[in-house]
Amino acid sequence: MTNRAPGEGEASRFGISVAKARACAGASATARPARMNLSIDDFARGVLAADRAVLGRAISLIESTLPADEAIAQQVLERLLPSTGHSLRIGLTGTPGAGKSTFIDSLGTMLTERGHRIAVLAIDPTSRVSGGSILGDRTRMSRLSNNPHAFVRPSPSGGTLGGIARKTREAMLVCEAAGFDIVLIETVGVGQSETAIADMSDVVVALSIPGAGDELQGIKRGLLELVDVLVVNKAEGDNAAKARTAAAEYTAALRVMRGEGDRSRVAVLTCSALTGDGVWQVFEEVRSRYASLRASGSLEPRRRNQDRHWLRSLLHERLDRLLLDLPGARSAFTDAEAAVLEGRTPPVVAVERVINALRTDLRGESRGY
Amino acid sequence: MTNRAPGEGEASRFGISVAKARACAGASATARPARMNLSIDDFARGVLAADRAVLGRAISLIESTLPADEAIAQQVLERLLPSTGHSLRIGLTGTPGAGKSTFIDSLGTMLTERGHRIAVLAIDPTSRVSGGSILGDRTRMSRLSNNPHAFVRPSPSGGTLGGIARKTREAMLVCEAAGFDIVLIETVGVGQSETAIADMSDVVVALSIPGAGDELQGIKRGLLELVDVLVVNKAEGDNAAKARTAAAEYTAALRVMRGEGDRSRVAVLTCSALTGDGVWQVFEEVRSRYASLRASGSLEPRRRNQDRHWLRSLLHERLDRLLLDLPGARSAFTDAEAAVLEGRTPPVVAVERVINALRTDLRGESRGY
Repeated sequence: MTNRAPGEGEASRFGISVAKARACAGASATARPARMNLSIDDFARGVLAADRAVLGRAISLIESTLPADEAIAQQVLERLLPSTGHSLRIGLTGTPGAGKSTFIDSLGTMLTERGHRIAVLAIDPTSRVSGGSILGDRTRMSRLSNNPHAFVRPSPSGGTLGGIARKTREAMLVCEAAGFDIVLIETVGVGQSETAIADMSDVVVALSIPGAGDELQGIKRGLLELVDVLVVNKAEGDNAAKARTAAAEYTAALRVMRGEGDRSRVAVLTCSALTGDGVWQVFEEVRSRYASLRASGSLEPRRRNQDRHWLRSLLHERLDRLLLDLPGARSAFTDAEAAVLEGRTPPVVAVERVINALRTDLRGESRGY
Repeated sequence: MTNRAPGEGEASRFGISVAKARACAGASATARPARMNLSIDDFARGVLAADRAVLGRAISLIESTLPADEAIAQQVLERLLPSTGHSLRIGLTGTPGAGKSTFIDSLGTMLTERGHRIAVLAIDPTSRVSGGSILGDRTRMSRLSNNPHAFVRPSPSGGTLGGIARKTREAMLVCEAAGFDIVLIETVGVGQSETAIADMSDVVVALSIPGAGDELQGIKRGLLELVDVLVVNKAEGDNAAKARTAAAEYTAALRVMRGEGDRSRVAVLTCSALTGDGVWQVFEEVRSRYASLRASGSLEPRRRNQDRHWLRSLLHERLDRLLLDLPGARSAFTDAEAAVLEGRTPPVVAVERVINALRTDLRGESRGY
């Protein structure tokens, strides 16, 4: 397997490089002793060669919280960066029961049959190290899980939503370096997880189902801000008419809430992930939006903005951690928060006290305290 | 005028303390030489005595960007803090042309006729020091501007949205200390200004108008997340039927987008700010939601969360400024951002370089560099 430089390969019908994908389609897992340590070189070369075993270990390395692993992970990422960015990044959200697993299994299979390589990742803020994740049941993607042109990975577990999202984002980059030309990141509609998905996707798809009886399942207000394609699933058999009605009501509601005008119009579709009916049309809509982003020159600026926002979030997180690691600053912050919340101190004054404590701590460091 | 302690005074029909307001209703501007400098004591006492001239100067002090003024402003705020919090904080947004000025003039007059004291502030991110603010035309609130029980102040000008929002928020606290029991903060629906309003209000009202012909004026997606009461204005004469139709369509759309269930239901009303028809009903809805927040014990936690969020934003802003003030850190950040956006360096690595530069700069400070 050669390391093909970014941008080579014929353009596909979808504007996605299929050539690199096809070239790597035959890569098999290289037999290795399970406990052999890999060097940074080994990781980088193995991922770029689309070696599935190395790919899995690289993502495990990224998920590891051991400081030594974190350092190696960042160096591996640095090596892989030039080979990233060449995928269509799809975010997928929906409440439990909307049929995400079945949908991904159906669409993913169709995509691989057309020569694509799809990686499926997840952000699940409810996941716990000892099992019990809403999205953990990858067995429900039975076909895709056994498909050599697909790579399915459960959510990283534990920690904050921010930490999980970062690891999934880094895993996405590794998958791109391994030649996957479509990366799908799924989440449940919990808390800010949908914002996290939107921050790393090119197109956001929300899966919905008609409610029982005459009730419509509502769309969380925050999601409306983020979604590009709204899909009403389970449009099969007796449910088909109900699904079409739900789609019509969503369309009318969206027109009212957004006003007329094509820009940032939300597409509303129906499908049956069970039968496959309408599933490909969902991808056509996603692909069409991605193609528009590229044609209008908007894709790169959009991704750069996402990266800029990611950098600043990481910086603020790191500064917060710095504050908490330094005893004087940490104690000043706790006092400051209490003073503000109890209405004793104006926030601007409180912040200045924290900054002064931070400066004092750091100056003390130079004198070996 | 005595400084009445928080919480005293009979509870009004609206759960808002009217007693303090009535007690101060007669306060008149104390004649002073225009250029006399006020001490912190003078500022604090004057505001608490509801002296309008001192109130205006206190807010000008808050808006000043001179470091000496900033220091005094914070000390004045610290003195006034115990007397704040005793108002109903209403956020009002709407596109230009929706009739906000007429609405505020109408509602504000009705409120003062019922014994309330209302302060009207503004967040206008388009305001410039040398005139030209969308919200600057306070002459359109002709009745309220001459009403002794009302205080109308234009938006602070210049700077970032965050800076403007902070000054308006601090001005709100000063108005509360001066005994105003209703504070209305208005903004145009530009950028993140609606989020800024929601972050400091108890109830958010959005003013809308039916579009020309059959088009409905859409609601910005982000606003839907924040609004409590949606009001379709200009329901007078020939427009009345159109306004009612628009209100019905918004109601149906909101039900679809949110699903059934009373919680965080958006109220949709019509009114004519010109004739006054329906305006009081808007306030009744606002008051009712405020009363529910208080009765359920949610108001204080909501405000504490707003303050907590404000504190953290200020802290991050201050840390950003610290980074930019220190030459090594500033240059490391510029390099880091470029490296990330050009895909050369993973963000986590880039952030670490910035942190190291910050530490180096601060340690250098202790050695007198």
